[in-house]
Amino acid sequence: MKAPIPGTTDEPTGPVGSSPSLSRLLSGPTGLGTKSLRFTPAMEPEPVPVPAPDAQSPPLAALPEPGPRPASQRIEGLYCPPAVRDDRALADEINDRLVQWAEQEVGLYPDTDLREALVGFDAGRSVVLCHPDAPGIDHLMAAARLLIGENAVDDYFCEAEYGGSADRRGAVLIVAQSAIDPAHNTPRYEADWRAGIEAHPALRSMRSAMDYFYALATPAQAHRFRHDIANLYLGYNAEGDCISRQRTPAVWEYLVQRQFNSFRPCLTLTDSIGGYELPAQLFADPGVQRAVALSSNASTICNDLYSLRKEQASGRFHYSLPTVIAAEEECSIEEAFQKAVEVHNEIVHRFEEQAAALSVTNPLTARFVTGLHNWMTGNHEWHAGNVGTRYATSP
Amino acid sequence: MKAPIPGTTDEPTGPVGSSPSLSRLLSGPTGLGTKSLRFTPAMEPEPVPVPAPDAQSPPLAALPEPGPRPASQRIEGLYCPPAVRDDRALADEINDRLVQWAEQEVGLYPDTDLREALVGFDAGRSVVLCHPDAPGIDHLMAAARLLIGENAVDDYFCEAEYGGSADRRGAVLIVAQSAIDPAHNTPRYEADWRAGIEAHPALRSMRSAMDYFYALATPAQAHRFRHDIANLYLGYNAEGDCISRQRTPAVWEYLVQRQFNSFRPCLTLTDSIGGYELPAQLFADPGVQRAVALSSNASTICNDLYSLRKEQASGRFHYSLPTVIAAEEECSIEEAFQKAVEVHNEIVHRFEEQAAALSVTNPLTARFVTGLHNWMTGNHEWHAGNVGTRYATSP
Repeated sequence: MKAPIPGTTDEPTGPVGSSPSLSRLLSGPTGLGTKSLRFTPAMEPEPVPVPAPDAQSPPLAALPEPGPRPASQRIEGLYCPPAVRDDRALADEINDRLVQWAEQEVGLYPDTDLREALVGFDAGRSVVLCHPDAPGIDHLMAAARLLIGENAVDDYFCEAEYGGSADRRGAVLIVAQSAIDPAHNTPRYEADWRAGIEAHPALRSMRSAMDYFYALATPAQAHRFRHDIANLYLGYNAEGDCISRQRTPAVWEYLVQRQFNSFRPCLTLTDSIGGYELPAQLFADPGVQRAVALSSNASTICNDLYSLRKEQASGRFHYSLPTVIAAEEECSIEEAFQKAVEVHNEIVHRFEEQAAALSVTNPLTARFVTGLHNWMTGNHEWHAGNVGTRYATSP
Repeated sequence: MKAPIPGTTDEPTGPVGSSPSLSRLLSGPTGLGTKSLRFTPAMEPEPVPVPAPDAQSPPLAALPEPGPRPASQRIEGLYCPPAVRDDRALADEINDRLVQWAEQEVGLYPDTDLREALVGFDAGRSVVLCHPDAPGIDHLMAAARLLIGENAVDDYFCEAEYGGSADRRGAVLIVAQSAIDPAHNTPRYEADWRAGIEAHPALRSMRSAMDYFYALATPAQAHRFRHDIANLYLGYNAEGDCISRQRTPAVWEYLVQRQFNSFRPCLTLTDSIGGYELPAQLFADPGVQRAVALSSNASTICNDLYSLRKEQASGRFHYSLPTVIAAEEECSIEEAFQKAVEVHNEIVHRFEEQAAALSVTNPLTARFVTGLHNWMTGNHEWHAGNVGTRYATSP
């Protein structure tokens, strides 16, 4: 009598409300996960063999010239330097390859509409904007697959609308962590665990994305990524608890949550995707840790600001920096939005100070904090580029 | 309007059943946490200033001679080599200092009975047995404080009997993580966060224990510890979910949980407590990661076996390696216990093979895997030494 993987098909997983509306599906992704990609156990594909990393990928030079840069709209008063590069054609190529990977290698999002939502999420542009120093498309693909894997875990396991369940979240997230931090026990139970991972698309996606990452990261870089994903899942658990109880945390507690439930894993692989390594002892330096935290906090609060209108419109219980400030200071959401912009700006300035101080300590550290800066500015541009469709510049 | 720290006093935290029975309190600690130390918000002491690490501690040579070694009873057929050293007097000294720290520095367990339970837990003997290569008592104290801090987080935030709550666990654990992985945002909210940490004894304990640890660990070692505590809290969330739903996981899923919800953070600081450093790039080596996982899995399953009778007697929903095997194989608990012993032994043998292979790669790696071995054998002796009081050798 084996219990199936929690959160899949062992019990009715009924969504909290009705099934996801078409308008929600069409509205595109939200938050850190895409959340637009419904879990459809009946359509669950069989596991497929995973080929070796894409050593045959064409070099960047072989790609078509970038198309016209899409118009972007910034939030008034939001401080963030411009992104270093943009490249629509490269982003499209990455999106195509992501669909191919999802379809042929990991069986993620088998429904055609959902596959379109995957493209609509535009992870391609995100990694192109955020990793201008990537030596080639293989490196960008490694970042993009991990991003999609993280979103899949969020969609399948944390979102009530799409099969996630508050009282099961903790149990499924630890299985998800094992997809990138392998189980070691006896041959029999290691085999059962491997079969368990292969039986779910989100788990397969994380396992496969990590396999590709191993090909270009050192063991220490891979271990760093595991740590930041463990942090992310701690953050999912914290946010999920508050949402379940409709509890709005204090601003400081929210900022603690957001430092973990954040883009941090995307930022800290900047050196792996850039084709070099910040050695682990330098990464662990308290000053570097502070720079990492400040840049990922700024990037994540940027998401809070651009996505506020959409979250407010969803009708679900929601909290983000503007709403927790409004609750704590008993002010209007418009006023809180301005205060959140100021908090964001202060964090960016503190990051820039920290980065400047670190840049004179060591050339590798300098390169790494430049990478953090690139990610923060690229992420801002990605959000600003989605204003009018997914995002907005005011509450 | 500031929300108080979740899981403390903002709402009735009513225990699931009645208040903890005297017999349970007297039965001593259980599981990885002591779980015998009731949360008493009314008795919450004021924060006290934290002195600098105990640079004035006497050297080991100044301590009294060890007393007679207590009799220990082993589980029949359980394979584990003997511990390297024991020292009752040193263990007692550490317990005394832990009480002093709890009382004077962090205000942990203010109730006298609970303070006695802290001594009864005998963290002193645990660190003496598990870290035979520690250069002095300051190093042992660093390990002991962290152990008590981890137990305090488990007791206060995860145990329903003592104030923990399933729907709040995720939110409080991330605040607990911030006690060892600091928040970085703006001066105003960093100050609020610091005040939040100082307002709760479990959070103060972890913060203080980490401050002492910083004094003897490198930044990379401290960062490694953060990672393993993040893993531990992921494990607490996973176990808590299953307990709330009274769901017995498959054996492989249980073993995945147990690799995170484990003694791992205690084992991986073996080099810090031993006064040396296994560099982060060697620690991240997949072979070393496997050795860490196998040795901590064996150590944690050892706890499952020795504590089974107590858990079964508690009447609470409980699962551990014997019970998940009994459920999956539909066999008696006695038969499952034997099978769990075999799983334990196989894991120990696989660890020893892995350790032998690693020992020829690098002298530091050899020393580190010896440290893992020391921890595993010391932990076994600690459990065997508590047979007849807290633990038992059969279901």
